[in-house]
Amino acid sequence: MLKQTGRYDAFKLKWHPSYSDPPTVYPIPNHQFWDSDVAKWIEGACYLLIDHFDAEIDAAVKELVTMIQGAQHPDGYLNIHYSVVEPGKRFTNLRDMHELYNAGHLIEAALAHHIYYRNFDLLSPILKYVDLLALTLGDGPGQINGYPGHPEIELALLRLYKLSADPKHLQLAQFFIEERGNPKGGAKKRHFYDVEAEARGESEHESPFHYPAPKSYWYQQAHVPIVDQETIEGHSVRAMYLLTAVADLVRIYSPESCTGTKFMPAVQRLWSNMVEKKSYVTGGIGAMKQWEGFGIDYFLPQGTDEGGCYAETCAAIGVMMFAERLLQIDLDSHYADIMELCLYNAVLTGMSLDGKAFTYVNQLASSEKDISQRFEWFECACCPPNVTRTLGFLGGYLWSHMVKGQSAVVNVHLYSAATLKIDTGASNMVINQKTDWPWSGDVDFDIQTEGPAVDLELRLRIPGWAKSWKACITPSPRKLDVRNGYLYLNAEWLQENPQFQLSCPMQPLLVRPNPLTLQPVVYVTRGPIVYCVEDVDHPWEKDHFKKTIFDPSTPLREEVSWICRLGLEELSPILTMSVLESYTTCVSSHTIFGLIEVGMGI
Amino acid sequence: MLKQTGRYDAFKLKWHPSYSDPPTVYPIPNHQFWDSDVAKWIEGACYLLIDHFDAEIDAAVKELVTMIQGAQHPDGYLNIHYSVVEPGKRFTNLRDMHELYNAGHLIEAALAHHIYYRNFDLLSPILKYVDLLALTLGDGPGQINGYPGHPEIELALLRLYKLSADPKHLQLAQFFIEERGNPKGGAKKRHFYDVEAEARGESEHESPFHYPAPKSYWYQQAHVPIVDQETIEGHSVRAMYLLTAVADLVRIYSPESCTGTKFMPAVQRLWSNMVEKKSYVTGGIGAMKQWEGFGIDYFLPQGTDEGGCYAETCAAIGVMMFAERLLQIDLDSHYADIMELCLYNAVLTGMSLDGKAFTYVNQLASSEKDISQRFEWFECACCPPNVTRTLGFLGGYLWSHMVKGQSAVVNVHLYSAATLKIDTGASNMVINQKTDWPWSGDVDFDIQTEGPAVDLELRLRIPGWAKSWKACITPSPRKLDVRNGYLYLNAEWLQENPQFQLSCPMQPLLVRPNPLTLQPVVYVTRGPIVYCVEDVDHPWEKDHFKKTIFDPSTPLREEVSWICRLGLEELSPILTMSVLESYTTCVSSHTIFGLIEVGMGI
Repeated sequence: MLKQTGRYDAFKLKWHPSYSDPPTVYPIPNHQFWDSDVAKWIEGACYLLIDHFDAEIDAAVKELVTMIQGAQHPDGYLNIHYSVVEPGKRFTNLRDMHELYNAGHLIEAALAHHIYYRNFDLLSPILKYVDLLALTLGDGPGQINGYPGHPEIELALLRLYKLSADPKHLQLAQFFIEERGNPKGGAKKRHFYDVEAEARGESEHESPFHYPAPKSYWYQQAHVPIVDQETIEGHSVRAMYLLTAVADLVRIYSPESCTGTKFMPAVQRLWSNMVEKKSYVTGGIGAMKQWEGFGIDYFLPQGTDEGGCYAETCAAIGVMMFAERLLQIDLDSHYADIMELCLYNAVLTGMSLDGKAFTYVNQLASSEKDISQRFEWFECACCPPNVTRTLGFLGGYLWSHMVKGQSAVVNVHLYSAATLKIDTGASNMVINQKTDWPWSGDVDFDIQTEGPAVDLELRLRIPGWAKSWKACITPSPRKLDVRNGYLYLNAEWLQENPQFQLSCPMQPLLVRPNPLTLQPVVYVTRGPIVYCVEDVDHPWEKDHFKKTIFDPSTPLREEVSWICRLGLEELSPILTMSVLESYTTCVSSHTIFGLIEVGMGI
Repeated sequence: MLKQTGRYDAFKLKWHPSYSDPPTVYPIPNHQFWDSDVAKWIEGACYLLIDHFDAEIDAAVKELVTMIQGAQHPDGYLNIHYSVVEPGKRFTNLRDMHELYNAGHLIEAALAHHIYYRNFDLLSPILKYVDLLALTLGDGPGQINGYPGHPEIELALLRLYKLSADPKHLQLAQFFIEERGNPKGGAKKRHFYDVEAEARGESEHESPFHYPAPKSYWYQQAHVPIVDQETIEGHSVRAMYLLTAVADLVRIYSPESCTGTKFMPAVQRLWSNMVEKKSYVTGGIGAMKQWEGFGIDYFLPQGTDEGGCYAETCAAIGVMMFAERLLQIDLDSHYADIMELCLYNAVLTGMSLDGKAFTYVNQLASSEKDISQRFEWFECACCPPNVTRTLGFLGGYLWSHMVKGQSAVVNVHLYSAATLKIDTGASNMVINQKTDWPWSGDVDFDIQTEGPAVDLELRLRIPGWAKSWKACITPSPRKLDVRNGYLYLNAEWLQENPQFQLSCPMQPLLVRPNPLTLQPVVYVTRGPIVYCVEDVDHPWEKDHFKKTIFDPSTPLREEVSWICRLGLEELSPILTMSVLESYTTCVSSHTIFGLIEVGMGI
């Protein structure tokens, strides 16, 4: 698709006919994100090459890297749009354009490239570009005192800093985070986006497409400084990328540091507001299509015909990123529960089984005017390559570990068939998970060590949805050490039990939304999966289940079926539910029923 | 208030300091509607003077009329803003500015003035202004081929035509209605608002405040021609004023005429869409604050904290106007039911008992961040004088009549203590209603005739909410003649029963919204009144009844209490309801309850 659409060759800096198209989403040129599409693909490809070499993919990465090298200006600048379409206008519209967002994805691509190829072919030009950015942007004299409308570079710079340990990478990210939303920023002591818009000669009423009113800077989480933000607002992907970086900044300085204590309350407040009042049962976020983002508290319609349900794939990936950073600060299974929920129900749903069709929007309920479906590609193609790189980096979400001498700590956040190799220098340890998760809750662990014994602490997440669970360890300890939803297994036990099973039986559950959401529905879940009833399996259904009454008092019948699709055989439970009846549409919005029975009956 | 704010003297055409204020609602200057505020006050004052002379009011009307006469340009033009603030720019922005809307209200004021004073002091200058408009606007060569963004002049011109019988008044209204939304209008064969905006040199992204996207002409019901509009959209007051005019146009030509058959299907379709899918239990319309208008089907939140509930007072007045026109085409009690619902629950609620405080927005439920309350005045003060003129014209909603020689037909749409005098030339007939409506459903009719007998047909609306009703007529007819919800009483019966009683017992009812609205509520009604529970009467309530569970299975207890407010003694029923319990807030948007009980239980 990158080749078909012109993206693949875009770093050759030749004119593409589509560059003349009027912006679909004013004022952002449709090709504005092409840099990031290519970068995300490189990032995903490099991660996936680690496990499985593919000569064609390898050659494509190398070709793209050569193109990127060739596209770099002598001073380090690197951007398709501002090289080909609007040369001379670089850094004049940080608010709307995705110049720094693209730079962020180039940095993340360079990191993945460096990890796999162990060379500097991509990292070197990107470091040169970052040098230019650090020179141009900041709060120093003569610098542009701005920050990107679409965060991404912040988290990328902090990932880069982990490798480079170069303080200017940390400083630039920190400047972007601390300056954001400053009402009296820069030399002019005004909001940067106002100053910048005036410099462009823009009328305040010439607003970006997504602004419901002039100066709706909450769209970019720049209405007030981050530390003063009470509720999570605006574009949901931007919010997640930003908060991922803020959480990472807290991790770098430690939560107890000055920076940590400054930002941590906002991070926790915004996470809680999101999870408790602004997220779907699937973990999806962003009810509002209008600004691809958050609505008011508890406004969580199921689909377009009810007034919303955007739940963009990239936003759910963002929730996973944010949760993953929080787990590094605060090992609490709550964050991993949300991460798992998103992975299975709002991210993996974003791609078809054959990997060739994608969702952008993940509404919970289909309607006649807006059928839920997957597409081959999008004009703004952020989601497909974002799924690719997330799958490539999946191990990073599964577990985290620290090694110090012959000691190791391994946190297991998610369960899946997976292997973790730990090299202490003296020893090689291999931790293996074997499981049919998410269909079965049994996970078999196998720990093999070559060389001297490793002092391993293994921490296993106990899922919040697990009503009961057990760890088969002999001799069974009197009391299991569970802290914040993680089972802590020490080296002594593990040496006696290098093979053991964690068992989290999965049962169908009915989940009811908070009554303030006004949703007269129940959700059927089993383990981490939220089940979906599909029109295609129910030919009797003519109205997308809008008027189907489900009887929660009838027990769910669980059947195991072999699903055979695309040559993949999968054993997955099918839940059979009984439908009580359908109600017919009332004639008017309000119908007099006389003294009605208790309960809505729907 | 008109005097305090500068409106009263505005037709003196002197500069007022507020003219320099930036527009609160871009691009409309805040004083843009001042002409209409004065005009609506004159209209209401003249109607009310008919029943009750007041020297101060009379003097004020005369003073204002003198000012209006003095404000007229030699060519007939008459507008405050374009005389004082932007001279030379008249008729350059029909889309956003309220120039023609103001003209419409001046016409309606002139009609009321002429009815009361029986002179031409106001009607003459207004007729001269209308001559200028008819010369300037239309589809003739050299004319502006446009139509107003805010309809009003259309219905005013048709009311004027009823008096003037001047075909150019009908033609101009008809041109505005037929040209509206024409994608290939005028000499340039393009949408008028596009042509006009380009002539002003406007960027398409420099959108009015209320536009969610460029060229959101559905805001003004001008996205497609009226006959092609499938659903009711956009600003609700504009929609009602427009459809009132369209219905009146159908009446003038007759529904069977070419014009009637062209427009009647759209009129009925849009009425039905509004009543069945886009109106509140109170008759209020317009869920969306963003554009003061209609949302998608069944999107009817109770208050701001749920995502909307604007229900502007003027919009409900518009529904009454629209219903009143429809009753003239099609005598069906359904229209009168809606008219009555609006009057009691969405219009009269718009003013406090002392007449000194008003609502603009009439949300159904209060919330901490947006308390339901009345205000003394508004910057955009359309609602207060609109209530005044509606009260002045209330008789026009109560009944309609036709007299032809010694024959008369009287339709009684609403019940209230009221008297109708009919002069056939030879006879004087007085029809009197005596009732405590809306607290009691008994109405005593008394018909007195001086002079020869009048062949009267009296048609009484049987309210849709009345589960049983009776008319005490002796001798009781074998079969009552009821057609489309109206009881037809002929002259023979009426001569035998010049006094009789119609009795429509009022009982408390629970009204349940259509399940597709997702509102887990019931409404308590009695007769035409929708009851409201108020925080002020329930000091135990701390969260605006958000979490109060009402038990619909417990019978309502009806108590009659004397309410004594402001010296007015009123006997009105108080309904006592039992509250089942309150639920506590769940910790998250979605809570696992295990296998839950049937029904939402809230």
